[in-house]
Amino acid sequence: MQKNILFIMLDQLRADALSCYGNNLVDTPNIDRLAEKGVKFNRCYIQGTSCGNSRASYYTGRHVRSHGASWNGWATRADELTMADHLLACGVQTYLMGKTHMKPDHAGMARLGIEPQSELGRFISNAGFSNGEHDDGLHTVGAAGGYGGVEPAYFDYLRRQGYAASNPWAQWANAMADESGVLRNGMFLKHSHLPARIGKEHSETAYTTDRANEMIKQMDVSSWCLHVSYIKPHWPLVATAPYHQMYRGMDLPKANKSDSEKHNAHPLYQAFMQQPHSKTYAQDDYRNHALPTYYGLVKEIDDNLGRLFASLEEQGESEHTMIVLTSDHGDYFGDHWLGEKDLFHDPVTRVPLIIMDPTRAADGSRGTQCDELTCAIDLVPTFVEWAGGEPQWQWLEGQSLLPILRQNQPLVSSNARSYVVAECDYSAMKFAGELGRNSYNARMTMLFDGRYKYIHCLGFKPMLYDLQEDPQELVDFGIDKEYSVVRSQLTEQMMDWSAGLKNRVTGSEFMARQRMGKSDEQGILIGYWQQTDVPLPLQLEPEVQAT
Amino acid sequence: MQKNILFIMLDQLRADALSCYGNNLVDTPNIDRLAEKGVKFNRCYIQGTSCGNSRASYYTGRHVRSHGASWNGWATRADELTMADHLLACGVQTYLMGKTHMKPDHAGMARLGIEPQSELGRFISNAGFSNGEHDDGLHTVGAAGGYGGVEPAYFDYLRRQGYAASNPWAQWANAMADESGVLRNGMFLKHSHLPARIGKEHSETAYTTDRANEMIKQMDVSSWCLHVSYIKPHWPLVATAPYHQMYRGMDLPKANKSDSEKHNAHPLYQAFMQQPHSKTYAQDDYRNHALPTYYGLVKEIDDNLGRLFASLEEQGESEHTMIVLTSDHGDYFGDHWLGEKDLFHDPVTRVPLIIMDPTRAADGSRGTQCDELTCAIDLVPTFVEWAGGEPQWQWLEGQSLLPILRQNQPLVSSNARSYVVAECDYSAMKFAGELGRNSYNARMTMLFDGRYKYIHCLGFKPMLYDLQEDPQELVDFGIDKEYSVVRSQLTEQMMDWSAGLKNRVTGSEFMARQRMGKSDEQGILIGYWQQTDVPLPLQLEPEVQAT
Repeated sequence: MQKNILFIMLDQLRADALSCYGNNLVDTPNIDRLAEKGVKFNRCYIQGTSCGNSRASYYTGRHVRSHGASWNGWATRADELTMADHLLACGVQTYLMGKTHMKPDHAGMARLGIEPQSELGRFISNAGFSNGEHDDGLHTVGAAGGYGGVEPAYFDYLRRQGYAASNPWAQWANAMADESGVLRNGMFLKHSHLPARIGKEHSETAYTTDRANEMIKQMDVSSWCLHVSYIKPHWPLVATAPYHQMYRGMDLPKANKSDSEKHNAHPLYQAFMQQPHSKTYAQDDYRNHALPTYYGLVKEIDDNLGRLFASLEEQGESEHTMIVLTSDHGDYFGDHWLGEKDLFHDPVTRVPLIIMDPTRAADGSRGTQCDELTCAIDLVPTFVEWAGGEPQWQWLEGQSLLPILRQNQPLVSSNARSYVVAECDYSAMKFAGELGRNSYNARMTMLFDGRYKYIHCLGFKPMLYDLQEDPQELVDFGIDKEYSVVRSQLTEQMMDWSAGLKNRVTGSEFMARQRMGKSDEQGILIGYWQQTDVPLPLQLEPEVQAT
Repeated sequence: MQKNILFIMLDQLRADALSCYGNNLVDTPNIDRLAEKGVKFNRCYIQGTSCGNSRASYYTGRHVRSHGASWNGWATRADELTMADHLLACGVQTYLMGKTHMKPDHAGMARLGIEPQSELGRFISNAGFSNGEHDDGLHTVGAAGGYGGVEPAYFDYLRRQGYAASNPWAQWANAMADESGVLRNGMFLKHSHLPARIGKEHSETAYTTDRANEMIKQMDVSSWCLHVSYIKPHWPLVATAPYHQMYRGMDLPKANKSDSEKHNAHPLYQAFMQQPHSKTYAQDDYRNHALPTYYGLVKEIDDNLGRLFASLEEQGESEHTMIVLTSDHGDYFGDHWLGEKDLFHDPVTRVPLIIMDPTRAADGSRGTQCDELTCAIDLVPTFVEWAGGEPQWQWLEGQSLLPILRQNQPLVSSNARSYVVAECDYSAMKFAGELGRNSYNARMTMLFDGRYKYIHCLGFKPMLYDLQEDPQELVDFGIDKEYSVVRSQLTEQMMDWSAGLKNRVTGSEFMARQRMGKSDEQGILIGYWQQTDVPLPLQLEPEVQAT
């Protein structure tokens, strides 16, 4: 039976930028309709707080500490299984349109004799997403040359539409002309009120949708998983008309911040607040200048998702296609005096997750919301179980969400989740060195149990937020004496989490069961005094004697 | 310049079975002489408490939680670097004579397109030890067939010496004839007072030494590392004459145990005490019947090491060969009412480690002892630095011991070790299921800071030993209120340890430094309001404008 998965990811999308997650300004009817037909997860948390590490968790189904790709630009290991491996094992072929932020493990492949350009090499280099079209966006240009590596197909597409340039991404799609007609760099927030120099039908979002629609039409395998991975609303905050001005002048939600947060701030929080982007977004006028464009980019994606869903319907695929929509992480956008992502407040770590399971068994859950703690790493086991496969639990650290989709019931298992964990490796940030941290110890780990958000900071005191008493996460109880018992309990949970990570990946549970006790019967009789002490129906000594 | 390493490992050797580590009965002059010429480490701790996991740590230079081969028979991942990779990178070729207990990662190799019988496949299957002769010993026979896989060269060797049998290991080398001439299985302790059915010149120990000596003679590379890995004194406790009776009837050291240990014992300790081998060794008469044979096997190895060292000398290799002697773990031998290994008391986790650095720079440390906490995982970086290479710190979790050898000084670095960690995955043990544990949560982690030995037991209360107040480790302070502050501190250390493990292995520190800040200059200008806010000497907007 055909089992397709349309796995849609937005980049840097805050949950609360969608109307179904409570935004009063941005109307996202296509996403909302998906939620009405599926289950909306209200407490889905990512495992890594930046693009690359979060995605590595989505794609491998494993925590950052397990897959090791703890920061952007660091590859997952060549022998790390990804979603594509797991799905292939149950007959589902994976395709990509858009961003993955995955890098090749060149050293690993070299040692393993794998030619990066071979079929296997491309599969590994792309974390399993070697079919389809890869484009991570961010083709910026600076004095030290370009960023973003290989020229994507989108460049030529733009040129064919008449946007002639050596780099049409930087010069057209993510650039604007100011009031005097001067070309402006889309990286600067000051220009975000200006429209992109291209038509909305040519934007990265439209292009991604067009190509995804073509791929859906051309699918010639029985079951597929298409990862439609939008580059936006990630910066540069450049939107095509009319999206660039759709929310301008409107009554924007205020940044969630308090002066008290700056007093005696944890040294790491302090360092994050001092980053240039945080300083920008901490200024309300700058933030409010940029936010309408962010919203416009979200609206544009919603419009395009309407086209994507229609295309799926037209192709007759809707009935056997699970649709999943999520984001790799959120965006502070001035909350807590911060910009970007990387720390653990809800605007970054809590992401939208909507899953629409088309099968009848899921009818009971349609339009419901789930408040259980769920995770990025839950998707791989969910996909595998949905496709009828057996998750390879020796690798996978999440839980299948199928029980929720199928029975509208909370997860019930011996592993029922009582907390979620996210991690941040800030060693690449300039302040790391100033704080005496190096590549191996610039690490923070968040454990959130639904009430308390405990953040272990290697080399520093911890942070602690109590979302029951302080739902806005404005008070750090990290060294508050009243919370010492709570901290001890959370510490124990974090130790348990760490000790229970899946490191013994080279064999399955089935293999373990097969082996168990077998060595006794092969004569490995450890520390028995004599034959009659052995609880086995064996005549061992005569066996030896027989020759 | 030639740089050789003679890396000698004994299997299941307790440190206190050597005269230089305080044994009054067993005289081990060859090992003692090595200690006189080198440094004797008094507090070297293993990282895994059984053969396979401990060796995987020795061979990879990584904690069990990092390499993942947490129990015997579980392979390290195909892309896990081993000692052989690290040494090859600095021009040293690795060879093996004897045991490794490493298994091939068949699933990993299959996915990576690596043919197990290819050169690379054999290298990976043998954890880098594909040159030389591999023999894990333990070629037992039971009703379900034989244990130990491929027939080793030692079988044919024995047959050539006249020991005709389908399995000369089980029928001659590790079997004995009782007083009535009946053939007896060497696995049963009852028979351990009887000599093996072969001459001492044909034992596994003698054979291993002979072959190692031949290898040394035939070495044709400029620098080599020869891992001489003895199968004994690991059970079966079968010694050739005269070693079988050398210590019989002597005044044996008593087992270190106390009745109080059995009262309110931690459930996991209780479970270990109930294992058949523990019940055997807890009986003094059985234990005292077996111990002289164990000692005899140690003595036999010491005699053979005399031959090995002489051979090295004869070949003129001594001056440029570092000699290292250690053990993969100890043996309870009735201490704490336990047999075998797997838990964390000193008889198991503290192993002998002697390093003789032949270079002049080490002259100052000859004959000294080092009380610093050291580890199995320190050997790889020590070897690499000794060979003149740069340790690949993105993988390696230990520390080079060269500063101790060269300056007779404690380790001084920003990473100076304040604790050691060892782990146990007991999921393969029959009691695991009875205690409600599965493949992924039957985990214990020990942290020893030189005084306190704290043991985190996933799903159970912790254990705690205070070796200052209780050097014999007879009292578990795991839930003692007096120790609650100490436990909190140890818990924090364990969290730090876990957060600092090396998972980001796909790139070097050099690569990290190279990348740092570079993206700014490639136009990745995150969250700047305008060009003049950028602290870079770039004209960014004209750059965009130039087309």
